[in-house]
Amino acid sequence: MRRLAPGRLLRARHQAGPAARRQPGCHRRKLHRGLPVSGPVIAVDWGTSSFRAYRLDAQGGIAERRESAGGILRVRGGDFAAALQAEVGDWLAAAPDALVVMSGMIGSRQGWREVPYVACPAEPEEIAAGLERVDWGEGEAWIVPGLLDESRPGQPDVMRGEETQVLGALAALPNGGGLVCLPGTHSKWVRVESGVLQSFATYMTGEVFDLLQGHSILSRLMTKGAVAVDRWFLEGVAVGQGGGLLNRLFSARSRALTGNLPEDAVRSYLSGLLIGDELASAVPAAPTEVHLLGAPTLAALYEAALAKLGHSVVRLDADAVAVGLHGLAGHLDAAGRAP
Amino acid sequence: MRRLAPGRLLRARHQAGPAARRQPGCHRRKLHRGLPVSGPVIAVDWGTSSFRAYRLDAQGGIAERRESAGGILRVRGGDFAAALQAEVGDWLAAAPDALVVMSGMIGSRQGWREVPYVACPAEPEEIAAGLERVDWGEGEAWIVPGLLDESRPGQPDVMRGEETQVLGALAALPNGGGLVCLPGTHSKWVRVESGVLQSFATYMTGEVFDLLQGHSILSRLMTKGAVAVDRWFLEGVAVGQGGGLLNRLFSARSRALTGNLPEDAVRSYLSGLLIGDELASAVPAAPTEVHLLGAPTLAALYEAALAKLGHSVVRLDADAVAVGLHGLAGHLDAAGRAP
Repeated sequence: MRRLAPGRLLRARHQAGPAARRQPGCHRRKLHRGLPVSGPVIAVDWGTSSFRAYRLDAQGGIAERRESAGGILRVRGGDFAAALQAEVGDWLAAAPDALVVMSGMIGSRQGWREVPYVACPAEPEEIAAGLERVDWGEGEAWIVPGLLDESRPGQPDVMRGEETQVLGALAALPNGGGLVCLPGTHSKWVRVESGVLQSFATYMTGEVFDLLQGHSILSRLMTKGAVAVDRWFLEGVAVGQGGGLLNRLFSARSRALTGNLPEDAVRSYLSGLLIGDELASAVPAAPTEVHLLGAPTLAALYEAALAKLGHSVVRLDADAVAVGLHGLAGHLDAAGRAP
Repeated sequence: MRRLAPGRLLRARHQAGPAARRQPGCHRRKLHRGLPVSGPVIAVDWGTSSFRAYRLDAQGGIAERRESAGGILRVRGGDFAAALQAEVGDWLAAAPDALVVMSGMIGSRQGWREVPYVACPAEPEEIAAGLERVDWGEGEAWIVPGLLDESRPGQPDVMRGEETQVLGALAALPNGGGLVCLPGTHSKWVRVESGVLQSFATYMTGEVFDLLQGHSILSRLMTKGAVAVDRWFLEGVAVGQGGGLLNRLFSARSRALTGNLPEDAVRSYLSGLLIGDELASAVPAAPTEVHLLGAPTLAALYEAALAKLGHSVVRLDADAVAVGLHGLAGHLDAAGRAP
């Protein structure tokens, strides 16, 4: 394992932690079905703009779930302890020994503590060994490290949060392997083999779509409404496949100006264009099985686009992050809560 | 010639105008060196966000030039006559017979009058024949039509203004032909052969750069300053060549996070990425001569990127639009001011 601190600490390397490291096969299997945890777990997926939490029993069953817009950028004065108390204080009061395990941007430079990245290829127990405890009076709170992929020279890639979702979905992958797509503001494509997160790539598809529909010359052409999975969306996917995105984008305008695209279809066409461009680069041309993990509305767009291009789609459980966090909690327990 | 009205009128076709149409070679030659004009001309390049005007003598010499931020979107209540009077009223008072010829978005749906597009391939006299007179008490005022390229099925492209710049630069092209790049918010790439504007393509490079540096997650990483033609810019060009733009864009963030890119270099790297992606699609891979027509700062970026990729660059006169407008005024005079 290599644990890499971000920024200037990038080159620092730490020794692998638990003795269990010498039996990776054993651990991998255990993570799949969940290591035993001695008590309740509060699983938190704490992103830039949203906060999601699950109250889990010792077996990993979801007893309760809640969600808020309290992402790390909304936390006043960086007081994450107070913010967590406000979000799940009632759960903690009822179960003071609960183990809190958190993934996502909470482990970034803007979060509670910057937790060093773990380098790909990354086994589940390597990620577990990178967990870091944060100062928190109430019980125990741990943050999952992000992942770093340096397989493409000069093009490092990073993620925080999606690795835990993929860990939670490992059991659903055939032989623990496959291509996993996590669509979103920054879509992630993760290649998994035998339960090991091999490599991944990020696409700024959702963010570029938001910028174009909110601030560009195209926004003036758009009527209100949501993206529809219709013929205009699929036409956008086909055009987006052709590459040369900066040119293709303009077709949303020129087609609307020349009566080639109804105004109420510009949004769907543009969404299709961007997703088509992403797929042209992220998925092999030959028919491929893609495992989709994300919110239903967005997953439906990617599923339609992938089907249009001849690929097959398997939808994964959108609550996979809770399974992933419970599995990591099991590693903490197995190591006496000190990975 | 086909003159095509935009929108619903797209399929309407008009008969070619002047008898001179039967002698295209003759006319083309004349436009290169400028047809005689009986008096002074006020040449106006009126875009979305800026207004540029030239006071020309009968021979096309620039007597005076001025520029303002008074683009068509800044004209109150759509009173373009008043706006023009405010911009060049003093020139008109001194020369009441001056012919006013205007190109750019002033001929769009948001402008003074929506002038039908002329279809590519377009000869100069076909563009001249599409000039339309607008209601204007002071002398004569004409608007140049835009161009429409329908050579790629389902991917129509449009321009308003750049066609006149290219007309003004024809004399500088070897045998009146070549690949002309007009970098900008919406970069245009025009293929010219023997003085005929054959085809073109638009790239939203400048607009996407502005959106990313102004509103995206990348903007938080950027220090203030301008884009520099340095090693980071050129590295961006090389990475951008690889395609998959939505993925490459993220490298501006991941490289900065991992210490692979200094913060004060993110802007230049991002600019290089976008221009590199544009060039990968707009310029053939084999060494090519590209004629650059644009503002010096932006032209310098494109020149450096093109040179890095092994292409040769010829800079064209940034005031070419004045030459183009004077040539079109000559056509009006030759046709008794009624094309």
